[in-house]
Amino acid sequence: MDQHELIEVPWRGAEHVDAALARYLSLAHSQAGKHGHRFEKLWDVIERNTTGGKRFRPRMVMTSYTSLGGEDLEAGAQLAAAYEMLHTALIVHDDVIDRDFVRRGQANVSGSYRDIATTAGIPLPAAEHRGMSAAVIAGDLALSAAYRLVDRTGAADHIRSRLRELLDDAITASAAGELADVDFSLRDESPSVDEIVEMEREKTAVYSFEAPLQSGAVLAGAFDETVDELGEFGRNIGIAYQIVDDVLGVFGHEGTTGKSTLGDLREGKWTVLTAQAATSEQWGSVTELFGKPDLDGADAERIRRVLVDSGARTFAERLAADFANRAWEHLASDAIPAPLRDDLSPVVRKVLERVR
Amino acid sequence: MDQHELIEVPWRGAEHVDAALARYLSLAHSQAGKHGHRFEKLWDVIERNTTGGKRFRPRMVMTSYTSLGGEDLEAGAQLAAAYEMLHTALIVHDDVIDRDFVRRGQANVSGSYRDIATTAGIPLPAAEHRGMSAAVIAGDLALSAAYRLVDRTGAADHIRSRLRELLDDAITASAAGELADVDFSLRDESPSVDEIVEMEREKTAVYSFEAPLQSGAVLAGAFDETVDELGEFGRNIGIAYQIVDDVLGVFGHEGTTGKSTLGDLREGKWTVLTAQAATSEQWGSVTELFGKPDLDGADAERIRRVLVDSGARTFAERLAADFANRAWEHLASDAIPAPLRDDLSPVVRKVLERVR
Repeated sequence: MDQHELIEVPWRGAEHVDAALARYLSLAHSQAGKHGHRFEKLWDVIERNTTGGKRFRPRMVMTSYTSLGGEDLEAGAQLAAAYEMLHTALIVHDDVIDRDFVRRGQANVSGSYRDIATTAGIPLPAAEHRGMSAAVIAGDLALSAAYRLVDRTGAADHIRSRLRELLDDAITASAAGELADVDFSLRDESPSVDEIVEMEREKTAVYSFEAPLQSGAVLAGAFDETVDELGEFGRNIGIAYQIVDDVLGVFGHEGTTGKSTLGDLREGKWTVLTAQAATSEQWGSVTELFGKPDLDGADAERIRRVLVDSGARTFAERLAADFANRAWEHLASDAIPAPLRDDLSPVVRKVLERVR
Repeated sequence: MDQHELIEVPWRGAEHVDAALARYLSLAHSQAGKHGHRFEKLWDVIERNTTGGKRFRPRMVMTSYTSLGGEDLEAGAQLAAAYEMLHTALIVHDDVIDRDFVRRGQANVSGSYRDIATTAGIPLPAAEHRGMSAAVIAGDLALSAAYRLVDRTGAADHIRSRLRELLDDAITASAAGELADVDFSLRDESPSVDEIVEMEREKTAVYSFEAPLQSGAVLAGAFDETVDELGEFGRNIGIAYQIVDDVLGVFGHEGTTGKSTLGDLREGKWTVLTAQAATSEQWGSVTELFGKPDLDGADAERIRRVLVDSGARTFAERLAADFANRAWEHLASDAIPAPLRDDLSPVVRKVLERVR
């Protein structure tokens, strides 16, 4: 998921988050020095894969924390940085699973290590394997960093316990979603729309929306009802966001989304859009094209026409709007104080605008 | 590393460790149920990869903890279980990196998932990839479990902080060692004996000896000097153990070690033994055989002869004895109370006996 378009407005504590991440990475780097320069270089690569992101999860943590009265921006920033490192861990391992060497046009961890190896004259298969191996290791380090950063909040023990539980649950949910995603890609028949929604929630919405929002609230000392409502809000807006992202992955403008609109179709990726279309009669005419590694622009247009004509596109857009509306309802709850509602409303509006 | 031969004697708290692991796995399993039966099955596979082990790291934790006056066997067992789950995480990811589908004659996580997929009619390359993907995910869950279990000790906050730091450092060291190991396998020239010793320390000795021993001591409230000496003891005996293991990997009796003595040679694995031999003139006569995937018994005998004639075997055995002797010296320190010394002495003796 790429939330880059949501984050045009400044948010409180952004510079604290960058500073906390920079401090953590610098500490990790200097500790890595004990283990030799090769290991230091791995931290350089991890750092490169962590900087330049739009810090969506940190933004959710800080918005929730500061709008609920949290004043220790340093503590909030450590927690926010934990979710950024978790994001790094998950995308690095996701790229291993997807055998991707590039993310957003740049070499990822696997790609960087593959390129170092090929430059050193190592043949491509061995170089790719070395890239993947380094990425497995890097993801483990980033995952461990997430736990370390939660501890660095310096919050009271019972608060940190709850923060760790939220982190644990987010890791578990992501693992479940990732496993489901792997399984869908191997099945002959299409998964159902419900299965896709559940997978997308687990794989992305929990760690990107629910857990960061809830964690910020816990750190701010919010009431349980507020934490619960934020979880429901996060779940619904997270699913809405993901469905929109899937639609834009096929119908978006590459200039805006920054991704090719051929990728998902070449990969044969099951999303709400394609799972819904697969239940239509028209789908039979494009099953040969869906998942074709060398699918071209004309092939993609044929699939897009089926996605539109079968009503799948409209279905997906409506489903996203439904989830966004449920998110509104939770945001309107009395358990959500007005400043937090004000700060989160733009997130919902942005999701709804993107569908149009 | 396979420490199974060290563990013939009963040790205090063994049954508590098994119970703590069983409880944790049962909890994880029931929480996994929320995410569907596919995800529950992943926990079944993780569980199968965790049971039946000889619980070497838990034994180190419990020996150190109970010999230093720790009386809460429940708390000790949670900490011991944390190191068992860390071990699981590291071997599962190590198998991904080594592209292994079998460990000790049984399908590992990748192997189990590959087999499920092939049985379902999925072609081998896709099935293998699915196996690896499941293993990446399983390793992440096991790593997260290690952090959770440290929290379950219920120890005072400052104690748990130190326990988490030891866990963090063990994860970092293992990552550095794993990365070095990957790099060695890609180099044209042999790494030096010193490089091998450092890699083996990082990859295995820290998380198998140093950190478990030190963690048990910290939980027992031991003095800093005791914790430090245990670290030195663990480092030296861990390296000694690993060097012996490498020698047995080529010269051992398969019936005793449980591993083929062809594996390391077919893989072209750099160990103290082979790195030392590579500095000799005789090595040139077997470089073609070392790392030959279909190396046979006669080939192996030729390499073994060079390992002996070049003096590499004697060198490795002496080096192991040197490290074991250094371990003795640290064990003899005044900072190590007599009961702990008594409980750890058999570990050193066993290592020395194995070389003979």
